[in-house]
Amino acid sequence: MRLPFFFSTFVLFAVTAHSWAASPSVAPAPKWVLAIHGGAGGLPKDLPPAEVDRIRNAMTLALETAGGQLASGLSSMDAVETAVRIMEDSCVFNSGCGAVLDHNGDAVLDASIMNGDGKTAGAVAGTRHIANPIVLARAVMERSPHVLFIGDGAEAFAQSQGMTLRPREYFITERRSAEWRRAVDAEKKSETAPASDLPKGTVGAVAMDTQGRLAAATSTGGLANKRVGRIGDSPIIGAGTYAEDGVCAVSATGAGEYFIRYTAAGDICARIRYKKESVDAAATGVLKDMQQAGGAGGVIVLDGQGNVAMPFTTATMMRGTISADHGLDVVVEVGGANEK
Amino acid sequence: MRLPFFFSTFVLFAVTAHSWAASPSVAPAPKWVLAIHGGAGGLPKDLPPAEVDRIRNAMTLALETAGGQLASGLSSMDAVETAVRIMEDSCVFNSGCGAVLDHNGDAVLDASIMNGDGKTAGAVAGTRHIANPIVLARAVMERSPHVLFIGDGAEAFAQSQGMTLRPREYFITERRSAEWRRAVDAEKKSETAPASDLPKGTVGAVAMDTQGRLAAATSTGGLANKRVGRIGDSPIIGAGTYAEDGVCAVSATGAGEYFIRYTAAGDICARIRYKKESVDAAATGVLKDMQQAGGAGGVIVLDGQGNVAMPFTTATMMRGTISADHGLDVVVEVGGANEK
Repeated sequence: MRLPFFFSTFVLFAVTAHSWAASPSVAPAPKWVLAIHGGAGGLPKDLPPAEVDRIRNAMTLALETAGGQLASGLSSMDAVETAVRIMEDSCVFNSGCGAVLDHNGDAVLDASIMNGDGKTAGAVAGTRHIANPIVLARAVMERSPHVLFIGDGAEAFAQSQGMTLRPREYFITERRSAEWRRAVDAEKKSETAPASDLPKGTVGAVAMDTQGRLAAATSTGGLANKRVGRIGDSPIIGAGTYAEDGVCAVSATGAGEYFIRYTAAGDICARIRYKKESVDAAATGVLKDMQQAGGAGGVIVLDGQGNVAMPFTTATMMRGTISADHGLDVVVEVGGANEK
Repeated sequence: MRLPFFFSTFVLFAVTAHSWAASPSVAPAPKWVLAIHGGAGGLPKDLPPAEVDRIRNAMTLALETAGGQLASGLSSMDAVETAVRIMEDSCVFNSGCGAVLDHNGDAVLDASIMNGDGKTAGAVAGTRHIANPIVLARAVMERSPHVLFIGDGAEAFAQSQGMTLRPREYFITERRSAEWRRAVDAEKKSETAPASDLPKGTVGAVAMDTQGRLAAATSTGGLANKRVGRIGDSPIIGAGTYAEDGVCAVSATGAGEYFIRYTAAGDICARIRYKKESVDAAATGVLKDMQQAGGAGGVIVLDGQGNVAMPFTTATMMRGTISADHGLDVVVEVGGANEK
């Protein structure tokens, strides 16, 4: 029998990229670097090992494919879009075909992308028929004069760009359907609205390419059993996503309302830009501010030199890195205080 | 015959609050202060004088009423909500019953509000039947665990709070209807999509109350003839609106896409917080950054001591202030380079 390729709670199986940020003077800046996350908060303990493998495999594929693009000289924009698209398409994260279902039983997806070269950005919120919201977000950035489209308007723009609309069923996996049914049943019993407080499995990527350009991307299905119309930080430039060449690239995951109120991604960049904080100090500082107010989550951050920080205030965060100087690292953990 | 109570282009009839920011060491901090804006960019030169009077009167009423609340000891949150609600209800700004119409001929409204005391916030985007989006934004903040609701979900939440939905016709004024007809005709002739590049008449307010608490609020109908689903900076915390006690309160107006990409409101606060810039330097610095990239607009800003800055990179910005130490000032100008 094949052993499930994961370790139990809190045991890291690979050196994380934290150490890079701690000793930027020792390690030379990598020629290119990619970091991804698959959401803050641990996986449920009862998740079948095969499902955990699928998650790890999807993250590995995202890192290898998008990392290969960076090694080939493609842009950080291409790399973060590719990494997020692969995770959206894997159906095992809370994004794309694996998204959680809202109070009505629909998958309602948000995404954003930002190019540090020129600080251009695109985002979509409240889409219901877009297989790859990150691709649509990039189309908004590159083929419209706008940054953010919501709902039917976002889908009309997608159609104007030749993108296919998917039926509702495309987004409803067996796992999410069962989770939704349990949430609705629990709600009926307690007569409260127990939307999960953390969006499990939001995905994101940050990258620096061989020309030193930064980019960031984030995609999510939001909160399970969320009220119709609720939007979190993932499509909000400055909250869930930010990028500015020479300064930072950030993708966030966690309690979205706090990330909006604290302009988390923007504040991390402001600390690096104005206070000259290290990438690690900036990222952990903002997470601590939010934690003191009651908001948990995690971020993946690059600074202008490609130093990486991936701190989190949840029990764990699914995450991985690949770069010109380091091999592939993936951390996928099961369990923890913030699991469902 | 009564003289129209306005001056022609670029002639200010009152001392603006700029001077306060320039000499904070001379003027003692006011015990309470309120600043409002009625949008960046000048009014059309052919706007009837009676309409200009209505605009000035609405701003005066907003300042007097909300200023009176502050003088009576009410909170900055109450004051900014009241000031914005009065401007929404006046039907002469691009918000509430005076909103511009989108490409389909509908008024689609966005708003956000933030309490510097605890950095809590609420926002709505893409509403079509809410007379006072700012009231709904505050309800989202105070009566839901969320920050941002969009579209039908925002309206469902409004109904759950006992708010009345208004028919489409409530929002369609003669002036906006004529503007929309002209825009659609022009579009047919040129076969381009000439959404106006600036949302004219976005409204906003920032206030410091007698307890030193800061709040900010913004409300808009967005761009005239905008594509369905386009959302600008007004409902985005950190872009169009931000407040943090002891640091800043910001409400923005202008080319919303730039304010999102530059996290304008958040960056103004970050410069005050981290770089210790004056309120004037922070506000003008961020506007200059955006202007260099091609984005025009204006902001009203308070710092933690109640010093005011109201800079703009458009030809003008409708604006006004009232405080415990100064009387009422209102600046409403006609014409300018950014007029339609």
